[in-house]
Amino acid sequence: MSELTIALDMMGGDIGPPVTFPAALKAAQAYPDVTFLLFGHQDAIQHEFKKRNISESDGIMSRMPIVHCEEVVGMGDSPASVLRNKKQSSMRKMIESVEQNNAQACVSSGNTGALMALAYYRLKTLSGIDRPALVSRMPTAGQHRVFLLDLGANVTCTAETLFQYGVMGSVLAQQVAQIEKPRVALLNVGEEDIKGNAQVKMADQIFKNANSVNYIGYVEGTEIFSDAADVIVTDGFTGNIALKSSEGLAKLVINEVKRQSQKSFLTRMMARAAMPLLKKIYNRVNPDQYNGASLIGLRGTVIKSHGNASSDAFYYAIGLAIQEARMQVPEKIKASIETVLLEQI
Amino acid sequence: MSELTIALDMMGGDIGPPVTFPAALKAAQAYPDVTFLLFGHQDAIQHEFKKRNISESDGIMSRMPIVHCEEVVGMGDSPASVLRNKKQSSMRKMIESVEQNNAQACVSSGNTGALMALAYYRLKTLSGIDRPALVSRMPTAGQHRVFLLDLGANVTCTAETLFQYGVMGSVLAQQVAQIEKPRVALLNVGEEDIKGNAQVKMADQIFKNANSVNYIGYVEGTEIFSDAADVIVTDGFTGNIALKSSEGLAKLVINEVKRQSQKSFLTRMMARAAMPLLKKIYNRVNPDQYNGASLIGLRGTVIKSHGNASSDAFYYAIGLAIQEARMQVPEKIKASIETVLLEQI
Repeated sequence: MSELTIALDMMGGDIGPPVTFPAALKAAQAYPDVTFLLFGHQDAIQHEFKKRNISESDGIMSRMPIVHCEEVVGMGDSPASVLRNKKQSSMRKMIESVEQNNAQACVSSGNTGALMALAYYRLKTLSGIDRPALVSRMPTAGQHRVFLLDLGANVTCTAETLFQYGVMGSVLAQQVAQIEKPRVALLNVGEEDIKGNAQVKMADQIFKNANSVNYIGYVEGTEIFSDAADVIVTDGFTGNIALKSSEGLAKLVINEVKRQSQKSFLTRMMARAAMPLLKKIYNRVNPDQYNGASLIGLRGTVIKSHGNASSDAFYYAIGLAIQEARMQVPEKIKASIETVLLEQI
Repeated sequence: MSELTIALDMMGGDIGPPVTFPAALKAAQAYPDVTFLLFGHQDAIQHEFKKRNISESDGIMSRMPIVHCEEVVGMGDSPASVLRNKKQSSMRKMIESVEQNNAQACVSSGNTGALMALAYYRLKTLSGIDRPALVSRMPTAGQHRVFLLDLGANVTCTAETLFQYGVMGSVLAQQVAQIEKPRVALLNVGEEDIKGNAQVKMADQIFKNANSVNYIGYVEGTEIFSDAADVIVTDGFTGNIALKSSEGLAKLVINEVKRQSQKSFLTRMMARAAMPLLKKIYNRVNPDQYNGASLIGLRGTVIKSHGNASSDAFYYAIGLAIQEARMQVPEKIKASIETVLLEQI
């Protein structure tokens, strides 16, 4: 029996099994003590096994059981309609396997809104947590990546919710990035006390009164990438825009490298000469590399992979799920929130 | 007599005259029909003239009169204290010269909060405009830059204010970038109708009912740089974070190029070989290059240059001031807002 079971939504993303299967197979090879439940249409998944001549006699298949699901959540389906209908979808069945403790974590690159809705209604939030948050690790100039949350689970947030995000982010930085006392900051339009909107100013006060969080104050947008903090907290609207706009700029740089280097023979030569250098930089700032956002605050681990993610990115997201499941992140968040609540009595 | 007079805050920014003066001089040389009023401490400014052996006999000095000001607004001064005190500051005197119609536009790289407060209280908003907005032109994959507003003039916005931003941005794109029918979009966390917070959804409805604006719907953060729209509207909190976080990522890329290229002899050679290519890309994504934000919606043209801007960036901001003054942007915004208001009757 495997130590750990991870549920995978094989039908998620723009492509489905041709992208998700290679990642699942690579994960099964890399983590020999983990079982992967493959949720999706059995024909499509079996086709991927056959294409690679993998049969029952290969040991690996026993750790990759298929859980046949009739339905698929489309990228354009509204969360409400997915909740009401699509009860046989691979995404819902995957979430239910975590709810029923048949798996310790799950990964999908499907429709974000539907995944969040299903996770929220089936898994429920931990006690003391109002709303789940979507968190991702962004590259920085320093040694560690920075945990940025919320990236869009909740477009409006109260000050209390922002504070809970700080507590959850801090646990994640401790458990996943092994940072002993993570520096927690609030994203704001300036560093002075007078700056910011009402929720941010109120959250600042709550953080200042909480001893169990290493709160360092406000940071500005430029500081997301400058290693100024280990955890940066903001509402889901702003966080989503910060993530996407920096992604947009990274893409502009990548396109600009391509465009400029194709301008003439000379620039093609220049680009070729510097290719290993450009690739290293690309790997550090390419949004695909920081793919794999965790939905935290729930009674189970849910990882969201980009909808247009490559197999490599989906593989990376599976690795993140394994890491969070092993570290028992939900249990640790629960314990941490209880400490904070006791502190406030 | 000159066609146009531009007021410059020579004491603004982290450095003052050593950075602002070379830009003013270059502008006086490049625009022979423009007079520049130099607001600041006369000794510091005269020192810059003397250093370059420029005397009264040189014609250029007659187009660069010094307006002596005893006080300087510090980068850390609160807007409220600047409004109450510092009545003799170069920033305030500069704004007052626009108010009294002694200059048609002004430029400062000083304290943003103080500049916005002074501009708002002295110049007042145009009728039909609730709040001024800070707008800048960001690089895109397309031929045109995109006008992004608000970048932090108002951290909270009503739906009506967002709509007014769209009208103002549209005028700016028409007048400054010569785009006949600028595509106006609302920044949101997704493109579907159900996405977004209450203000954004309400603003979407107002835009849909306004025939005089070429509204194209929602865009996401990634699309700021993809040439999906000519004008992108958001509240000052989100806009500031979008601007700063993409700036932060651009800086990360630049630092990464430096860091990686200094790793070994080989990588140094690679970087050297590709230097002209890297420089071109740098020039396109370097935030200094899109320096010069316009404060619009006021009865006068006010340009904000970065506090740590180079002389080149300050020169670019002066060029923007000349362009907006020549195009009579405030008058055009006034006319456009009146059209929209009539439409709603």
